[in-house]
Amino acid sequence: MLLLQFKSKVLLKKHNMKWLNFVLMFFLFVAATHAQKIMGFTDSSAAKQFAWEKQFFAQIKAANLDEWMKFLTSHPHHVGSPHAKINAEYIANLYKQWGYQAEIESYYVLFPTPKTRLLELSGKKPFRAKLEEPALTADKTSAQKAEQLPTYNAFSADGDVTAELIFVNRGVPADYEELQRRGIDVKGKIVIAKYGGSWRGIKPKVAAEHGAIGCIIYSDPADDGYALGDSYPEGGYRPKDGVQRGSVMDMPVYTGDPLTPGVGATKDAKRLDRENATTLMKIPVLPISYEDALPLLRSLGGEVVPASWRGALPITYHFGPSRDKVHLKLEFNWDTKQLYNVIAKLPGSELPDEWVLGGNHHDAWVNGAEDPVSAMVAQMEEARAIGELVKKGFRPRRTLIFCAWDGEEPMLLGSTEWMEDHKEELRQKAVAYINTDGCARGFINAAGSHVLEPFFNEVIEQVTDPQTNVSIKDRKYAKAMVDADRAGRTKLMGNKYMKIGALGAGSDYTPFLQHLGIASMDISFGGESNGGQYHSIYDTYDHFVKFIDSGFQYGAALAKVKGLMMLRLANAEILPVDFNSVYRTVNDYVAEIKTLLENSRIDIETESKMMNEKLFELAKDPKKKYGPPTAKDAVPFLDFSSLENVLVQLKNASEEFQKRYGKAPQLSADKQSQLNTILYKAERSFLSEKGLPRRSWYKHQVYAPGYYTGYGVKTLPGIREGIEERNWKEAQEYIEIVAKTLEAYTKQVNAANALTK
Amino acid sequence: MLLLQFKSKVLLKKHNMKWLNFVLMFFLFVAATHAQKIMGFTDSSAAKQFAWEKQFFAQIKAANLDEWMKFLTSHPHHVGSPHAKINAEYIANLYKQWGYQAEIESYYVLFPTPKTRLLELSGKKPFRAKLEEPALTADKTSAQKAEQLPTYNAFSADGDVTAELIFVNRGVPADYEELQRRGIDVKGKIVIAKYGGSWRGIKPKVAAEHGAIGCIIYSDPADDGYALGDSYPEGGYRPKDGVQRGSVMDMPVYTGDPLTPGVGATKDAKRLDRENATTLMKIPVLPISYEDALPLLRSLGGEVVPASWRGALPITYHFGPSRDKVHLKLEFNWDTKQLYNVIAKLPGSELPDEWVLGGNHHDAWVNGAEDPVSAMVAQMEEARAIGELVKKGFRPRRTLIFCAWDGEEPMLLGSTEWMEDHKEELRQKAVAYINTDGCARGFINAAGSHVLEPFFNEVIEQVTDPQTNVSIKDRKYAKAMVDADRAGRTKLMGNKYMKIGALGAGSDYTPFLQHLGIASMDISFGGESNGGQYHSIYDTYDHFVKFIDSGFQYGAALAKVKGLMMLRLANAEILPVDFNSVYRTVNDYVAEIKTLLENSRIDIETESKMMNEKLFELAKDPKKKYGPPTAKDAVPFLDFSSLENVLVQLKNASEEFQKRYGKAPQLSADKQSQLNTILYKAERSFLSEKGLPRRSWYKHQVYAPGYYTGYGVKTLPGIREGIEERNWKEAQEYIEIVAKTLEAYTKQVNAANALTK
Repeated sequence: MLLLQFKSKVLLKKHNMKWLNFVLMFFLFVAATHAQKIMGFTDSSAAKQFAWEKQFFAQIKAANLDEWMKFLTSHPHHVGSPHAKINAEYIANLYKQWGYQAEIESYYVLFPTPKTRLLELSGKKPFRAKLEEPALTADKTSAQKAEQLPTYNAFSADGDVTAELIFVNRGVPADYEELQRRGIDVKGKIVIAKYGGSWRGIKPKVAAEHGAIGCIIYSDPADDGYALGDSYPEGGYRPKDGVQRGSVMDMPVYTGDPLTPGVGATKDAKRLDRENATTLMKIPVLPISYEDALPLLRSLGGEVVPASWRGALPITYHFGPSRDKVHLKLEFNWDTKQLYNVIAKLPGSELPDEWVLGGNHHDAWVNGAEDPVSAMVAQMEEARAIGELVKKGFRPRRTLIFCAWDGEEPMLLGSTEWMEDHKEELRQKAVAYINTDGCARGFINAAGSHVLEPFFNEVIEQVTDPQTNVSIKDRKYAKAMVDADRAGRTKLMGNKYMKIGALGAGSDYTPFLQHLGIASMDISFGGESNGGQYHSIYDTYDHFVKFIDSGFQYGAALAKVKGLMMLRLANAEILPVDFNSVYRTVNDYVAEIKTLLENSRIDIETESKMMNEKLFELAKDPKKKYGPPTAKDAVPFLDFSSLENVLVQLKNASEEFQKRYGKAPQLSADKQSQLNTILYKAERSFLSEKGLPRRSWYKHQVYAPGYYTGYGVKTLPGIREGIEERNWKEAQEYIEIVAKTLEAYTKQVNAANALTK
Repeated sequence: MLLLQFKSKVLLKKHNMKWLNFVLMFFLFVAATHAQKIMGFTDSSAAKQFAWEKQFFAQIKAANLDEWMKFLTSHPHHVGSPHAKINAEYIANLYKQWGYQAEIESYYVLFPTPKTRLLELSGKKPFRAKLEEPALTADKTSAQKAEQLPTYNAFSADGDVTAELIFVNRGVPADYEELQRRGIDVKGKIVIAKYGGSWRGIKPKVAAEHGAIGCIIYSDPADDGYALGDSYPEGGYRPKDGVQRGSVMDMPVYTGDPLTPGVGATKDAKRLDRENATTLMKIPVLPISYEDALPLLRSLGGEVVPASWRGALPITYHFGPSRDKVHLKLEFNWDTKQLYNVIAKLPGSELPDEWVLGGNHHDAWVNGAEDPVSAMVAQMEEARAIGELVKKGFRPRRTLIFCAWDGEEPMLLGSTEWMEDHKEELRQKAVAYINTDGCARGFINAAGSHVLEPFFNEVIEQVTDPQTNVSIKDRKYAKAMVDADRAGRTKLMGNKYMKIGALGAGSDYTPFLQHLGIASMDISFGGESNGGQYHSIYDTYDHFVKFIDSGFQYGAALAKVKGLMMLRLANAEILPVDFNSVYRTVNDYVAEIKTLLENSRIDIETESKMMNEKLFELAKDPKKKYGPPTAKDAVPFLDFSSLENVLVQLKNASEEFQKRYGKAPQLSADKQSQLNTILYKAERSFLSEKGLPRRSWYKHQVYAPGYYTGYGVKTLPGIREGIEERNWKEAQEYIEIVAKTLEAYTKQVNAANALTK
């Protein structure tokens, strides 16, 4: 009906004749008799839902996003700043005006800020880094110097170190293998790494593991600077003095306040001593601009780096060590700050104890127009529009909860502490959590629990792309086709189903999905904006309206997508899940992992033969240091049978369930209630109490941030990382653990089947 | 025997005990009774040949290369310069001393040199290009300003043009498709292109075809400057003011003097008027440094280029047009210059009318240490060593001819004119032509007629790599294995056979192979040197010994490889050909071309469907200009049956021949002579009198330089380029023409078979 309406609108524009109203009425009649379906709704409730959704869409006003962004970004609003509190109160008040039960829930967290920052190079050409982002006349808020956090990495260690410098590319484990083959040791040295290629916190973590005593991270113009487009303010890309702030807490171990793992950081919570907190970075780390990096990089001697290590600076990149020593001195104020989460509820009329949650953070590193305000204001508009429906008589069957998190930037402090504080209630009540965290012009992106993938596909058919007037799903398909190579196009042609990604970490879904097993999704738009403002003083209203989403059209579209998801999750008779999607996805992951193992076996066998024949020595340039790869033991065969057996069971059970799913909305209210509880709790079966190796806080056995990638997801992480790190025993152990979670999951599907018989 | 000797040397070094001499004698005895084979030699003549080859190897002295390079590079020695003549006489005199019949053969060719060179940018920041390579104190000959040719492109048109500037990436046809999709037209504009990605002459040719009125070519540091390594003189790479000179004659049409196509440019040859010469560039073209290019590139407005177009300069690359106008003024002295080819003969003792030719040019753009002197001195040492053998009683059965060409740089002037002047004799007598044109540290590279591929593989087993003490073949294999990906390694593992490339154009083999059908090869070493000196005043002795081949070890190895090839070709009872290799290669090319056609069909079909569904419009960023690809007609099916049928015949005939090849050296002298004539003339069967489309001078139907790639080869060019340019009629016509040449070739193989029965 909705799609039909849009088509009719186009017709009306073209002809604008009265008789078309008659045609429209006729179509509406036809649509009503050939009712469009919504997953989990009876036909009659679907018709009502469509009508509300139509009104919901009509309510969304881009101008509101603009107005709220102006306010929310008017001053820097990082954790503990006056404006973070002001913003939280502003948001809470609006929610209350719109009819929500809105509260501010506070937690008290460790949040270090810089006291001393010094970076200098000794020698013939001494240099002291500026460590300053200058104000631009073209950008009004960039001059709010007194309120801005200086450029730094939160949770860096205090330190005062002097040493030679080594360039480590992205600073991931593979880079250290390259260094090792060249006989370069970072022990006792300071490393300099490029941003990108991994989450930033991985860089100092891996550097410290290799014995480095300090870490500098810089933004190479190849990644978000002039190589990609004109620099701010001519274009949107990072200018020469622009710096990416950011947290380097060891997030793959646990998120949230480092001093209160597993429990809410309430005022009187029991806290660890700082020395015992395992997620604090062990060495000093400082982010710098490429202008500050240039003299350091120019001071590097040693051999020239391989092509894949190069950036876009006008220099020859060398490994180092530097000819002169680098001095890095950092001291922090290790303060406790009060957080202000805004939690706004609209109680469910029929199922108040089933919670549908949406969230976006409100804190920023500086003014944070794109990150996070662009999607924060979308969520606000979504909530306002739903409030308007309520005024017209709409009642969500389930409870809707909109969260505006504080302290996301330092590492999901607000969301994690709230989750830990409300753990038991969430376990019982949370149906799903939908996250956003910024919005730009372009294409719909989504990742999350695959049980929601078909549901999400249904939703994105209903939302029109603001630039092309086709559905955002159609536009996404067009982009995928155009970007694909020959094989990809042949495979994709005609198949508009959008496969969603898997979630690692990096925004507030992590505690809900990976610690508690709440089915979650993260959605955004992007791909056509022009940005290098990330975590700098230039992520501002002025930058946003010029380069990111002029007119807030995609913010409005995001409000529609997430609003529709929230409304359908809230009102469906039967929750819109699809177990076939889960089976297909996990089955693909298992196939991937088996290929990973097989390829690893082939590679090791080949390398071993090549080493026996001394091919690496023969091929190498004798004037350069470049040893053969480290000899590795042969790759054993692992026993995947438990996984393979349970996957067959899951397949059968899922197919059975989905065959009956269409009829489930006709079950009795009692059975529906029992069934829904099973459906939303099914994701919890993927948790294993033991958690992942070296990080028991992460319980989910299908999705996790990589121990050595950070934001980047590792699917079936226990097995995959065991194989990647050649810990065969652990990999085999986690095959069994994952099989057990799949068994538990299948049991839930079978329980659902029993109810639908 | 040779390999054995090397292994024994290693043993001797390790133990140095007298009894090892006994062991060695024993091995030599065993080796003699289990005689090593050489293609085309009886066992007894192979044993003699090995003995001479051993003496030949012992003669090669790297110090000679050093001495001669010092002399030959002591002054600039381009066409028509005093030192070009001095060098030719120096070389001729040495050849005479070594016992050769050496003569200087002169031709008189058009060779333009600059009279006026002006490049400037108007507007607020006016700029005039320096167009100068400064002398460096670290490089002695770089200061010979008065003798140096200025930086220019030979055979550019005279012109005085003022227009906006457009950046065209590499300036190949695909780049203009990208421009067209963005609505950018170069008509009436000046274009600026990066060096690389095609032979330089293609850039102004394609620019002119699209209506551009001028062309600037610059060396981006991504290609041979600081991105790859330190700039000269710290490293070997192109410094900021370094410029690549070079010819832009339309070489894919014909090579040699533009005024005497098809005939030798003797003093009294009939010459075209300059206006009627088809290989002169139609617009003015100027090569510049990146330092001179920077202000021009900075002046470009318009959209940002795609990633694949970017270079390594610290700017955002834009398409243009430029905000201000560019003024390019070029005038040339269109003089006729005398060329000095040195032709040195060692008449064959038994078959003086069968000529084995080797060649390297002696002219350079400036001092030319790497290009061409590094391989010129290798050929000289090779000739000197053979002269020493002659003093000891060695007599080549066939005539050896060593050519030192003048005028290669402007476009194979010396070799082409000599070939055209001696066409009939070469048709009758030329057995093979082996070319070199520079030598650096690293790995053996080879391309050429595939009938010589197995022969070449036999030779490279005999030459030891100077850095690793394994054979150059083993080292090449090691490099290929190390560089390969998983699939490549699996395929290559254990297979050391070195597949040679195919020859396009770019050095003096072209007239022999592609106009006359003389089986040819081009060989070199490289891959480990550190060079951005190409065609600049920095290609000097000082640069060479520091960054290219210190100690001349690879020059010496090149002398060994080519010497062995010449000696075996000269002395074999039966010429070392392999028709199976020809069959396999042509068969692979046909398979490639069928895949090309099929992929083109799939691509057009897919694109057409995508255009019908408007996917390109939907996927594109509405804020940018980027139209869909041009609609193209469906790809027809072509009839390959004539080719497929004749390939079966060639396969059978070749297999039969190679089965009997081992016994052929025992044929009677008369039959051997008849057979050898067939064998070396077989390559002529690949010629078609009609030549290639739009360039009848190119007769070879298997190998040619691409009409739009230049140096880059196109195999089965008539068919391949027909398909690439969507000229289906022409492609089908050339399938039949190629089939006819293959039929003629097969006839020769069958004639050879008849003789060996």
